[in-house]
Amino acid sequence: MNACIIAVGSEMLTPFRTDTNSLIITDRLNAIGYDVRLKMVVGDDVEELARMLSLAAASNDLVVCTGGLGPTDDDVTRDAASKAFDMPLEIDETIVTGIRERFERRGMKMQAINRRQGMVPRGAVVIPNAFGTAPGLWLDGPHAAVVLLPGPPREMTPMFERIVAERLAPKAAGRGLFRRVLKITGRPESDIDAAAQPVYGPWRHARVPISTTILAVMGQIELHLTAAAASRADADQALDAAVAQLRGVLGTSVYSTDGRPLEAVIGSLLRDRGWTISAGESCTGGLLMARLTSVPGSSAYVDRGFVCYSNRAKTDLLGVPPDMIAAHGAVSEPVARAMADGARTRAATHVGIGITGIAGPDGGTAEKPVGTVSIAVVAGDRASVRTFQFIGARDMVTFQSTQAAMNMLRLLLMEG
Amino acid sequence: MNACIIAVGSEMLTPFRTDTNSLIITDRLNAIGYDVRLKMVVGDDVEELARMLSLAAASNDLVVCTGGLGPTDDDVTRDAASKAFDMPLEIDETIVTGIRERFERRGMKMQAINRRQGMVPRGAVVIPNAFGTAPGLWLDGPHAAVVLLPGPPREMTPMFERIVAERLAPKAAGRGLFRRVLKITGRPESDIDAAAQPVYGPWRHARVPISTTILAVMGQIELHLTAAAASRADADQALDAAVAQLRGVLGTSVYSTDGRPLEAVIGSLLRDRGWTISAGESCTGGLLMARLTSVPGSSAYVDRGFVCYSNRAKTDLLGVPPDMIAAHGAVSEPVARAMADGARTRAATHVGIGITGIAGPDGGTAEKPVGTVSIAVVAGDRASVRTFQFIGARDMVTFQSTQAAMNMLRLLLMEG
Repeated sequence: MNACIIAVGSEMLTPFRTDTNSLIITDRLNAIGYDVRLKMVVGDDVEELARMLSLAAASNDLVVCTGGLGPTDDDVTRDAASKAFDMPLEIDETIVTGIRERFERRGMKMQAINRRQGMVPRGAVVIPNAFGTAPGLWLDGPHAAVVLLPGPPREMTPMFERIVAERLAPKAAGRGLFRRVLKITGRPESDIDAAAQPVYGPWRHARVPISTTILAVMGQIELHLTAAAASRADADQALDAAVAQLRGVLGTSVYSTDGRPLEAVIGSLLRDRGWTISAGESCTGGLLMARLTSVPGSSAYVDRGFVCYSNRAKTDLLGVPPDMIAAHGAVSEPVARAMADGARTRAATHVGIGITGIAGPDGGTAEKPVGTVSIAVVAGDRASVRTFQFIGARDMVTFQSTQAAMNMLRLLLMEG
Repeated sequence: MNACIIAVGSEMLTPFRTDTNSLIITDRLNAIGYDVRLKMVVGDDVEELARMLSLAAASNDLVVCTGGLGPTDDDVTRDAASKAFDMPLEIDETIVTGIRERFERRGMKMQAINRRQGMVPRGAVVIPNAFGTAPGLWLDGPHAAVVLLPGPPREMTPMFERIVAERLAPKAAGRGLFRRVLKITGRPESDIDAAAQPVYGPWRHARVPISTTILAVMGQIELHLTAAAASRADADQALDAAVAQLRGVLGTSVYSTDGRPLEAVIGSLLRDRGWTISAGESCTGGLLMARLTSVPGSSAYVDRGFVCYSNRAKTDLLGVPPDMIAAHGAVSEPVARAMADGARTRAATHVGIGITGIAGPDGGTAEKPVGTVSIAVVAGDRASVRTFQFIGARDMVTFQSTQAAMNMLRLLLMEG
């Protein structure tokens, strides 16, 4: 079954806004076996939209259109659908009454223009909107089913989920695309692909075929596995085996197979041991602590942290000896280690992390160019100290530094 | 002049990836007066792409297509264009030689499949690619000009800029859409629109018409002004006047008219006075310091910061009296103020900030629900202390807290 998704709104034809509804819709459609073959963004132009709706409906089984159902003149989706499928618009007083009551419940009066939202192409089914005034519409066209939904994701998503559950999923009879995501850090993309490709290559032609996509995002790599299966049970069996095989060749570089970010994985490892953590941060300026504390419940293992941007602060707050800084430079493994030890001692935690580096764009030297970052992790009676050369702009260097620090800790905790 | 942008690649029809090239292309096209009327995402399907290229070229002056120019079987853009515009493909040995030499310079051997990238629809102009193997192509069709560019933004962007400069801009003769962005914080969107709408409403019909879009993004509002003008000078004159008018009604809530984020504005204000800053952070966990230090050169005014997640840490690191915490609660204005004072005293800086709140999802009470955040800013001999009720998930609460703290500081620095 093929689908086309159309996002309506001139604001998505500016340099400032992009369509994101289609990602949510694609996810739900894939889950019941629909392939999205085409996506479009059309402005608030009734003729153009009518033309695109006809075109999409002629060569797909399903067309999902979001936006353009508001009350103003700019909202042209109802008119365009009426034109495209030759279904005259008629007022549905039940909708108008519903909108009027919605306003009255909030102590407001419905404006005359809102009556437009009660216009329905003859024969269309009205889809109630629990979070806004614009109802959705379901049209059974000669070739394709056409769904018109409001643009705001908060309104659109539950309406589309209901359509999937009530109208589309029953036809799929359990068949669909089922996914898993492996998150990996600490190895380059080419390295991961070289190791994984011989494993995932044959899956394309397996009984339950699995396709694999590699996405390299800042400081990590994601392997997306998509199984096309007749049921969730079939898919789970194939995907479980696939994940186990990939873990076999990728080893401990896989940090998550359930969608959790690295900071949440670290949180679980610390919680499991009842350990606490502290950090002394220079170039990352608090980003590591901010990521650790972004996890709900992190107060169970985070007590305090130290941002030591200046050399003086490294000495004052973490006890790094000034002559060590003079001898090795602020960006050096001994200083990173002294920062980790100082943070752990002064915060009285089980784990201490020290990060010191050159985030750029200035401050690099021939010996220590921008992107040079020394990181130390002390955890129980183990320690790990490394110097990295990160590539990219300032925000890339700082993010990758926090990612590397958390990964060093993860590996220490898994070993010990 | 109307344009259509087509992004080619099946990966952009998954739930994981969206087209972003079109935002860059739209920005450049708008600047020379082109209106983008339609955007499409098409998979790696030669028939579908040929159909969409024909369709787009029939009703636009320009079609810009990115992606699908690689060497593999999945890369179908050359074939689709040849089919759509009835221009047979011919091998261009100059391109093949260029690709072979590119590989050899890197000590690699060109693979046979790379010859595909030398195929050119008869009559097309080849656009060199400085950052990759796939050349771009310019086709003069009967209705529209069609540009085919590679997908990676690093390769696509400079090639498109060259096309704009050499082929498209000369025809525009200076005419184009010119923009300004006002960034605003500390007031709700409805309030901003109510104040600004009477000002910007009439601009649509001015001699140099200006259209206005409001975008509410996390913790701030952006007003985008777009002037359609015959020259940059005309646009600048109209936009300068427009910005001044909006500043008149919006006052100090406008923090930037040149695209700079709030942390950069704060950085300039501190630099101008030669002042330094420190912060004691509880619920934001280091995010304020991370944002302040994300600005290049921030070591001129940032020395150190304190993440005090536990009550004990607030006392140890910032000297907040335990009986004050017992009397008022950790989330309270007196504690926020004591944190700001403690940070300033212990870091010996000119400015101190204290943030304490409930980021959620747990920890809220009837009296202090999730989203309650007390913030204190001390700067020179001035101080500002406020308690906010932020709405949204944990990351929304922490981001808005840092935004509010920086805005309080901005207002204090502007007053004094």
